[in-house]
Amino acid sequence: MTPIIDGLQCGHFDRDSFIALRSAGVTGVTVTCGFWEGTVESLDSLGRWRDLISENVDVAAIALTPDDIIRAQTDGKIAAILGFQNANLFEGRIRLVEVFAELGVRVVQLTYNNQNELAGSCYETEDSGLARFGREVILEMNRTGMLVDCSHVGNRSTLMAIEASEKPIAVTHANADSLFAHKRNKSDDVLRALAQSGGVIGCAAYRNITGDYYSGPLENWCEMVARTVDIAGIDSVAIGTDRSHNFTAPDYAWMRMGRWTRSGDYGSASAARPGKAAPPDWFQSLQDMDKIPGGLRNVGFSEEEVAKITHENWLRLYRATFRNSDS
Amino acid sequence: MTPIIDGLQCGHFDRDSFIALRSAGVTGVTVTCGFWEGTVESLDSLGRWRDLISENVDVAAIALTPDDIIRAQTDGKIAAILGFQNANLFEGRIRLVEVFAELGVRVVQLTYNNQNELAGSCYETEDSGLARFGREVILEMNRTGMLVDCSHVGNRSTLMAIEASEKPIAVTHANADSLFAHKRNKSDDVLRALAQSGGVIGCAAYRNITGDYYSGPLENWCEMVARTVDIAGIDSVAIGTDRSHNFTAPDYAWMRMGRWTRSGDYGSASAARPGKAAPPDWFQSLQDMDKIPGGLRNVGFSEEEVAKITHENWLRLYRATFRNSDS
Repeated sequence: MTPIIDGLQCGHFDRDSFIALRSAGVTGVTVTCGFWEGTVESLDSLGRWRDLISENVDVAAIALTPDDIIRAQTDGKIAAILGFQNANLFEGRIRLVEVFAELGVRVVQLTYNNQNELAGSCYETEDSGLARFGREVILEMNRTGMLVDCSHVGNRSTLMAIEASEKPIAVTHANADSLFAHKRNKSDDVLRALAQSGGVIGCAAYRNITGDYYSGPLENWCEMVARTVDIAGIDSVAIGTDRSHNFTAPDYAWMRMGRWTRSGDYGSASAARPGKAAPPDWFQSLQDMDKIPGGLRNVGFSEEEVAKITHENWLRLYRATFRNSDS
Repeated sequence: MTPIIDGLQCGHFDRDSFIALRSAGVTGVTVTCGFWEGTVESLDSLGRWRDLISENVDVAAIALTPDDIIRAQTDGKIAAILGFQNANLFEGRIRLVEVFAELGVRVVQLTYNNQNELAGSCYETEDSGLARFGREVILEMNRTGMLVDCSHVGNRSTLMAIEASEKPIAVTHANADSLFAHKRNKSDDVLRALAQSGGVIGCAAYRNITGDYYSGPLENWCEMVARTVDIAGIDSVAIGTDRSHNFTAPDYAWMRMGRWTRSGDYGSASAARPGKAAPPDWFQSLQDMDKIPGGLRNVGFSEEEVAKITHENWLRLYRATFRNSDS
């Protein structure tokens, strides 16, 4: 079975999630430990993740290095890579980057849906570009071994982050805007600059940002991956489904509105299609992920190319960026 | 003696500060309760201010309304208006605006020296303009009775804040960039838009943002005030000295670098002139503030105009914006 590393999932993972993912061939997944949470809440979340892994140590492990992912795979476990979808965990403190790296966090997105002290978000009317604190944080993440994620970051800030970072960065879960136009998706310019610098985009399987066509049969989603490879090249395209586990209405409200607004905000959805998006036609259950490698072969990718998309590109990027990479 | 309201001072106030200010004719002052502090630290700061006022209840009072300022004046006390130079006290939570209004906070600056979730700062390479959370906070400050301050906010964000706010706003401590070019000073466009909307600028007496000429003899500083009136009109110019009390090197380090950078940052100073700026020649001690009304008369202002600059413009703006204004 071709191993799959998923560059981003979110929601409330449980034992069933781990077992289902592992049985579908997923050997590593970057999990979302927080969206809007500040420092203490983020520590809480890391604590909950430690508990969850301890309670499921027979099927899951926390991965601090790329080798941990491979080790988990050998042991028949799923490796959880700890990530945050916002930089709020740092609360404006440059020295907390190292602290959270030490606590095992490996992936942090510079902004979530709103502008912050670091950069502009894709949902702001205007993308501010990288701000002073954003430059400081990127270099500190480089130094302390965290991967910079720009999935919800605006195109302009993303280009500036690629430029400012001394190491390649990631767009863990987004698609090409030229394939499906959406604020969350990235321009071809961004995808090319990302590729040029050794970065990787994880293609999302979230209907709001694929549109209905690429969320139809698996063949269509794999066609989207192939077209993304046409833009960014075979070494820079991977998988980042954006799949959520056990999400309910209050979770969507938190994700979209956090505490920043009393008004409604639709996030990647819209007034016309609010609420939870239907999963892709091909992706009704986690088990469906086991069809991905075959689907990629069916749209013409070679075995070597399938390996890059499903796991090797993420592993290469993790080796280039993660703290204490041991090989 | 013509009463003076100072739109912004900072530092570690003590009994001596209150007595010196009151004896110089200062009857109201907006104090800085925080620069980078988050929610809990800001609550701490408010607690310390309550203690400080309790311990000096014979010479000082907290003003919640414009009438409190007048009452304090009648009682021979100085009125402290509680302000923050950053929106960090809200920590991204829209509902905390009302909470802090209830706790007596009356003036909040949207950004300090760095971009944040609300807006762009004057020190960023580029001013983002007002962000989504900034719009929400301004309307909530309008509703809950707080004055929006844009002194360290970028020119572009300030123009957008004037536009977005349903009530007039303040630039509590800055000067006209056309009189002394500095990132912290405001363009004539901003000053005119501010005036047009009923807002007020407090002219600063801080050498870094006046330059040496306007920090020479009092006559020069009063000339700067007169030129600012030429730009913004007599109803929109007041005093906001930016005077600091008992400030030492660690205070400047905190003010400028907070926790956001390990590198040096000079704030309003520069590599050529780092550290603490010398006070204006005319403003060696707090007692010198008692010369301001006379100085303004000497550059040609009428008694009515002197009253507007020294206190009436701030009082009018406070009546238009403060919660529970009782007259």
